[in-house]
Amino acid sequence: MTQETPQPQLDTIASADGDGRNERHRSRMARKKAVIDDKIAQAQRDCGVIVITTGNGKGKSSSGFGMVVRAMGHGMKTGVVQFIKGAIPTGEEKFLRRFPEECEFHVMGEGYTWETQDRTRDIAKAEAAWEQARRMLRDPSFGLVLFDELNIALKLGYLDVSTVIADLQARPEMQHVVITGRGAPQALVDAADTVTDMTPVKHAFAQGIRAQAGVEM
Amino acid sequence: MTQETPQPQLDTIASADGDGRNERHRSRMARKKAVIDDKIAQAQRDCGVIVITTGNGKGKSSSGFGMVVRAMGHGMKTGVVQFIKGAIPTGEEKFLRRFPEECEFHVMGEGYTWETQDRTRDIAKAEAAWEQARRMLRDPSFGLVLFDELNIALKLGYLDVSTVIADLQARPEMQHVVITGRGAPQALVDAADTVTDMTPVKHAFAQGIRAQAGVEM
Repeated sequence: MTQETPQPQLDTIASADGDGRNERHRSRMARKKAVIDDKIAQAQRDCGVIVITTGNGKGKSSSGFGMVVRAMGHGMKTGVVQFIKGAIPTGEEKFLRRFPEECEFHVMGEGYTWETQDRTRDIAKAEAAWEQARRMLRDPSFGLVLFDELNIALKLGYLDVSTVIADLQARPEMQHVVITGRGAPQALVDAADTVTDMTPVKHAFAQGIRAQAGVEM
Repeated sequence: MTQETPQPQLDTIASADGDGRNERHRSRMARKKAVIDDKIAQAQRDCGVIVITTGNGKGKSSSGFGMVVRAMGHGMKTGVVQFIKGAIPTGEEKFLRRFPEECEFHVMGEGYTWETQDRTRDIAKAEAAWEQARRMLRDPSFGLVLFDELNIALKLGYLDVSTVIADLQARPEMQHVVITGRGAPQALVDAADTVTDMTPVKHAFAQGIRAQAGVEM
């Protein structure tokens, strides 16, 4: 969040062009910087955070995978458990399986709930997936873990929300957890640090364009 | 989107437990599948899409980077141009620079606008960044390109929206473009295929937790 101030020479040139727009921009940005710096000064705690991406819009899982590679860039070991998806090998799975030392990847689901149509089997899969997740939550060598589509498993009642929250809260202090999927339960939202609702504005699918490799899968 | 139907044997066990919940689940999911299959049947067009992630919530850039690795998993060549960020090396930059053949990465900004406080210089940087972006938009070897924080450069008037849209529309037919940042201009939203507004529900920062490596940077 820190950065050198602009070079004095460039400022002089900017003022010399006479329209005052640069000067107004500078003073507006200086005020903005003061407000932001003050907020930064007040936020000094470091700890693992729980991030939830939910809602009906596109970008929930992809933002989770973006955080996984961001963490890998910082040298963290990461873990991924996919709860619902699984029938179709995805680009993110193909890519991340190239780095087994950096990212432990588990696909535990068998596909979307409307494809399996079998609640007993879906519950057994979700429970097995949560066992993998719990193991990661007890292992401080994982810097960031992603539980993709966990919200859906919770929403459908495949897993008990209070058990999941207790396991999350017992994790190592510096471990980050990212949880994705529509319909995050309120108790999980309450237990999280950062929550984003991905709100759809428009979607290519509605315009007759099918799911595109690289974008949706 | 296709998958084998569940095993008959498990269905029999499910019915035998007598509470009928599995059967209700199955018939609800069968109806849902019919609706979804019908929608899939109607969406058969393949083409490059423009995806925009905007809004004030967390997850815009990370979802863009998730799509980059998803595309890399499908063997596509990708390109990244970062328009505003740049002062601090990020995890995604460190990670993606390991694969120069698969991802061409350009950091063109010098940091947040309230840090640089210099409009003339910011405009020159944005124009240089758009030159890189335009080169990618004319090169069909790129399967997916990410223009991170382009929306902010447009919102601040650093780049002309109609020029940007014309360049986007002239790109190769199968190329995907992901554009991130707050305040996407309406004309760009109109030109896009998929648009998501990332709406903040809560953020760790407001609770005194500073930006965490792996999550925010």
